[in-house]
Amino acid sequence: MTTTSRVLILLSLALWPGLVSSQSPVSEETTECVDCHISVTPGIVKDWQTSRHAGTTLASALKKSRLERRVSAESIPLEYRDHTVGCYECHSQNGADHTDNFEHFGYDINVIVTPNDCRTCHAQEVAQYTPSKKGQALDNLRNNPIYQLLVNDITRLKEVTKAGVVPSHISEHNKGQSCYACHGTEVKVEGTLTIETEFDDIEVPNLTNWPNQGVGRINPDGSKGACTACHPRHSFAIEIARKPYTCGQCHLEPDVPAYNVYKESKHGNIIYSKGAAMDFKRVPWRVGEDFQAPTCATCHNSLLTTPDGKVLAERSHDFGARLWVRIFGLPYTHAQPKEGGTWTISNADDLPLPTTFAGVPASEFLIDAKEQSIRRGRMKGVCTGCHATSWADKFLTRIDSTNANVDRMILAATQLLQQAWDRKVEDPADPFDETLEMMWLRQWVFYANSVRYATAMSGPDYAAFKNGWFDLAENLRAMETELRVRAKKKVFRR
Amino acid sequence: MTTTSRVLILLSLALWPGLVSSQSPVSEETTECVDCHISVTPGIVKDWQTSRHAGTTLASALKKSRLERRVSAESIPLEYRDHTVGCYECHSQNGADHTDNFEHFGYDINVIVTPNDCRTCHAQEVAQYTPSKKGQALDNLRNNPIYQLLVNDITRLKEVTKAGVVPSHISEHNKGQSCYACHGTEVKVEGTLTIETEFDDIEVPNLTNWPNQGVGRINPDGSKGACTACHPRHSFAIEIARKPYTCGQCHLEPDVPAYNVYKESKHGNIIYSKGAAMDFKRVPWRVGEDFQAPTCATCHNSLLTTPDGKVLAERSHDFGARLWVRIFGLPYTHAQPKEGGTWTISNADDLPLPTTFAGVPASEFLIDAKEQSIRRGRMKGVCTGCHATSWADKFLTRIDSTNANVDRMILAATQLLQQAWDRKVEDPADPFDETLEMMWLRQWVFYANSVRYATAMSGPDYAAFKNGWFDLAENLRAMETELRVRAKKKVFRR
Amino acid sequence: MTTTSRVLILLSLALWPGLVSSQSPVSEETTECVDCHISVTPGIVKDWQTSRHAGTTLASALKKSRLERRVSAESIPLEYRDHTVGCYECHSQNGADHTDNFEHFGYDINVIVTPNDCRTCHAQEVAQYTPSKKGQALDNLRNNPIYQLLVNDITRLKEVTKAGVVPSHISEHNKGQSCYACHGTEVKVEGTLTIETEFDDIEVPNLTNWPNQGVGRINPDGSKGACTACHPRHSFAIEIARKPYTCGQCHLEPDVPAYNVYKESKHGNIIYSKGAAMDFKRVPWRVGEDFQAPTCATCHNSLLTTPDGKVLAERSHDFGARLWVRIFGLPYTHAQPKEGGTWTISNADDLPLPTTFAGVPASEFLIDAKEQSIRRGRMKGVCTGCHATSWADKFLTRIDSTNANVDRMILAATQLLQQAWDRKVEDPADPFDETLEMMWLRQWVFYANSVRYATAMSGPDYAAFKNGWFDLAENLRAMETELRVRAKKKVFRR
Repeated sequence: MTTTSRVLILLSLALWPGLVSSQSPVSEETTECVDCHISVTPGIVKDWQTSRHAGTTLASALKKSRLERRVSAESIPLEYRDHTVGCYECHSQNGADHTDNFEHFGYDINVIVTPNDCRTCHAQEVAQYTPSKKGQALDNLRNNPIYQLLVNDITRLKEVTKAGVVPSHISEHNKGQSCYACHGTEVKVEGTLTIETEFDDIEVPNLTNWPNQGVGRINPDGSKGACTACHPRHSFAIEIARKPYTCGQCHLEPDVPAYNVYKESKHGNIIYSKGAAMDFKRVPWRVGEDFQAPTCATCHNSLLTTPDGKVLAERSHDFGARLWVRIFGLPYTHAQPKEGGTWTISNADDLPLPTTFAGVPASEFLIDAKEQSIRRGRMKGVCTGCHATSWADKFLTRIDSTNANVDRMILAATQLLQQAWDRKVEDPADPFDETLEMMWLRQWVFYANSVRYATAMSGPDYAAFKNGWFDLAENLRAMETELRVRAKKKVFRR
Repeated sequence: MTTTSRVLILLSLALWPGLVSSQSPVSEETTECVDCHISVTPGIVKDWQTSRHAGTTLASALKKSRLERRVSAESIPLEYRDHTVGCYECHSQNGADHTDNFEHFGYDINVIVTPNDCRTCHAQEVAQYTPSKKGQALDNLRNNPIYQLLVNDITRLKEVTKAGVVPSHISEHNKGQSCYACHGTEVKVEGTLTIETEFDDIEVPNLTNWPNQGVGRINPDGSKGACTACHPRHSFAIEIARKPYTCGQCHLEPDVPAYNVYKESKHGNIIYSKGAAMDFKRVPWRVGEDFQAPTCATCHNSLLTTPDGKVLAERSHDFGARLWVRIFGLPYTHAQPKEGGTWTISNADDLPLPTTFAGVPASEFLIDAKEQSIRRGRMKGVCTGCHATSWADKFLTRIDSTNANVDRMILAATQLLQQAWDRKVEDPADPFDETLEMMWLRQWVFYANSVRYATAMSGPDYAAFKNGWFDLAENLRAMETELRVRAKKKVFRR
Repeated sequence: MTTTSRVLILLSLALWPGLVSSQSPVSEETTECVDCHISVTPGIVKDWQTSRHAGTTLASALKKSRLERRVSAESIPLEYRDHTVGCYECHSQNGADHTDNFEHFGYDINVIVTPNDCRTCHAQEVAQYTPSKKGQALDNLRNNPIYQLLVNDITRLKEVTKAGVVPSHISEHNKGQSCYACHGTEVKVEGTLTIETEFDDIEVPNLTNWPNQGVGRINPDGSKGACTACHPRHSFAIEIARKPYTCGQCHLEPDVPAYNVYKESKHGNIIYSKGAAMDFKRVPWRVGEDFQAPTCATCHNSLLTTPDGKVLAERSHDFGARLWVRIFGLPYTHAQPKEGGTWTISNADDLPLPTTFAGVPASEFLIDAKEQSIRRGRMKGVCTGCHATSWADKFLTRIDSTNANVDRMILAATQLLQQAWDRKVEDPADPFDETLEMMWLRQWVFYANSVRYATAMSGPDYAAFKNGWFDLAENLRAMETELRVRAKKKVFRR
């Protein structure tokens, strides 16, 4: 072999590192899966072939140092260690727990790979994620009678009768395409389906409320969550989870404009302008060395170190771990809830909300000042990777100031709504089905949230004319007018 | 030459493949164009120099296999075969048909290159495109008296007189900057203009309604369409047409939020996160091998194969070819129209709309169940390149469920409007110029469409709070209130 | 050294050019800064290390030809010439002028580097910027009593009392998070803060209204502006300023939808699709050679040449230098103001606005036709780098047509508001605190601006359904209805 050839080969390997990994040993079972699926569903097979799962063995993964490790289980069964993590390794886990397990060309296969299956290697991530607000996201909606009122009022069908517009069927389909698309559906198995293939008919489990990749999905093995919400199949690339587009699937205006705010922030500007030259793959993720501006993951969950390896923030898949206050007001901002399952909260008015309509927090269900201080310290540890301490302090403090000011605008709206209820202009039985009630809802869900996210992540447009202070002020005046006119004319309900 | 030099040169060629192609022979005429325009309009000359048109000859293009070919004409005149496709080759086609043909430094040049000109090499694409809804997009608006009412109500000037706000001049200018910017204008020649140059004054045709690159533009040679709508000059790069930004020029919220939905979908997430490592140029486009998530073009028109060359979907420039139902409701969803020219449709109420206001489809103008099944099969063929058959079936089926549910919300709104018309609260003569009428319009054009696109392409925010079910429900209640108050107070018209 | 090694090293240098520059000499002072801050704030140190500031010396920067030079000062003090531009070089400038100067481990350091400091090397940019509308952006808001009414009405707190909703405290905090986040705050020093570090407590200046990077920030040395608004620390990369995300931090819908329009324009489409293959760093920026479609900076301020070095447009940091008309109507479009400080304007109604409510321009404060022609010529010079002269002429002319048409829709809205004021339905004392007044505001700030930006930069959605003609028409009808109902029922104020 000539010098030139060697140089070219070395360079090829350097430029297309994927080529190196294709030599990792694939299990016999996965080989058989691939042999057929490379023709049947080439998209996902090829996607997997670009993945770290396809390019390494668990034996080598386990040899990495603590900070470099991507598998968190203390030990992994010997049978998995010497080949890549392929189709069969994931889709055959814990079959006895899976009502979606079925016989497929001689193998027992689960349709859905669940957090409980991923746990074999990623134990710590699942342990953090499952009890968190994300892991409990479906139950947080469907087990909370207040939120269910809202979900149903919005998504149920309506009909025009002689009595006017009346609510009609509650539609699980509509919920699955809107609220539960992000929060997750409950996927169940209802018999089987027969699929025609070019070889023969095959029987597969018939899944309901499927497809779905919501963060709080309830799976056929009873586990909660969908790792694929943020780690899409079948590359499961860490660079996807670290890039802001992932969070941008759900955290959007008008209700949770986190991604929209990020896009117009200076952080976003730098990432969109220069991100192509940054490294979104390395573990641990080194501030300054690998990247020069943060994405969502940087601030909220990634393991961060200095270039020389000092830990600035530990990885967490509980996305509240660095948050001391919940700026998504319900209706007011409040200390983060102690438990991710929030439907058990009961406030002083016996409502399952973290604050009363008057703003009193349900403190026994919320983290205390000491825990708040710890979490705020974690976030500040991220900020000070780039910013001076005084900068970070002032930045975090003004989030608190914005919360206080915006909460006053919610209080004002609530006082107007209370007048409407007291004067029988509207009926508090369902707080989400009349005109003033929905103006009140917009005040906190749309406008207050916009201003808070805008402050917390520096996207000022959302604090000004785009669902911001402009709308907080306008909506309050409109509520007052609506209330005055209807109270005077005795136009009740709606 | 040393080993090192050779390596460097080879690498240069590998890294900057454009360099190779610069040796393709340029015609004498084009050489003369370039000699002058490289100084006068360097941007477009250099852009062309990056193009495949500038880097290959038709002779070599014609030698490609069927699947690899980018030219679809059965035969191409000999005179064009042995040099690149340059300025003169395109701007001199069919001059006799062009009222915008003019003498320019000794050459007869057309200002506008039209689909009829591109047809010389891209015959099949033009044959598919011209009769499609896109090719007919201008006539579909201006030949349909219902749509013209809407266009005029929106874009005409208004004045305040003693009688109140009254409609004033209809403005072709305003139409050209709004509706017709996407749908296309009719470009005509009105005499000539004198342009001062550093050499001498030159005379050029004076084009009206120009510049414009709308998809249904009517050109000075009578042809319809603008290939540059999606293949912008002068690189005409296939990677641009395949990337979602192209469709994002027009398919936007609040009326057609296809691009907005895509951006927040998992497909979009993967493309925005990892697209830089994918190949947007190769023909045919191999699922999994070249890309691991779809763009608009993937699902709607590109030629797709498996990595080993099995065709999953044939290319089509009729963008309805893989669509069985039209989710852009008018006002209700309906089977795709048989013909791209939709102004000839006449429904049971004698209106040029594909469904009546009560929801009855104008079936004789719409494709039948068999054709629907064929087109649905084409789309499913794309889905199953990556997804299991049962996944794809369930996904496509729920589009139908969403359509049915959303159509009921349009029916309810229509029933309220009909009451308003029956009770003389508003006047049906023009259904787009009064308050309830416009609330009704928003129900189907903004909110219903948002929910449908959100389901069809998995962007749940647009099914929830962002012009989605939240707005479908809110708008219906607001319509009811408006109707009740005005009927009671006898506030008629507006 | 073998041939192979040399090739590999050369290639490394070619592929990662940053490596070369790390050998530029760093001053002793900056070395000491870096030695500590590489541990304390590694993000910004590493970001600086990727910068041109870190990779070159002023001596070499000054040797560049006029067009290639990035420093514009005629001469630069000798002491700075022979090392890189590092922490100390910037943070120690003009300390005597800085109330934020403090002793920091033996050095006198300014917290904030201001335009007056950057001026040492970038004199011409600062001379253009400071007196421009951007440099004066804070004073333009806070010195103009009309604009202050609007700012306060929007951002002040409100309370519900027996009298209804009443305005409460004016909040500087709220202004700083919304309007002034883009326009700039006035940063002052109020004593010191004690910061705990792992070494020892340190004292730092306590800055108010900080952090802020608004374009018109007033700094502790009295200078105006923040270069970091567009050149974010600490890479100060020209590619960031040239990419559209920078302008997208502030120029956003609904009030100034420039970035939104750009994103859906053909220019934006090409940049987003093929920008990765373009050169955003070279100076001068060569049309066609370095890029094939423009960004915001291309049209509005960059130094542009043809590939062979002919200047198409000189660089300017007065972003009005190529604008003949101000399409951001106040309330109507008007010739650009002569001075960037616009609070001194007084129109025929003695209001500090460039046009009266009836549309009469305050001509003595606005540029004349001759200057308009010069600036229009500059912009046309940019257009014709790619487009034919007749194309550019027609394009620019239709901006004027749109302005005229949209201004008529503002006039109509103003006439309705004037009727409301005349009939005492609302009170003109504050034109921004009642229902019809705010509908009128939306007519010009949201809808008229959207249509104008959509025309000027070819994003037709914003001229149609997205805050465009649809909304101009709808809002006018809604204003008429509101006025008629309230005048009849004598519902006054609000």
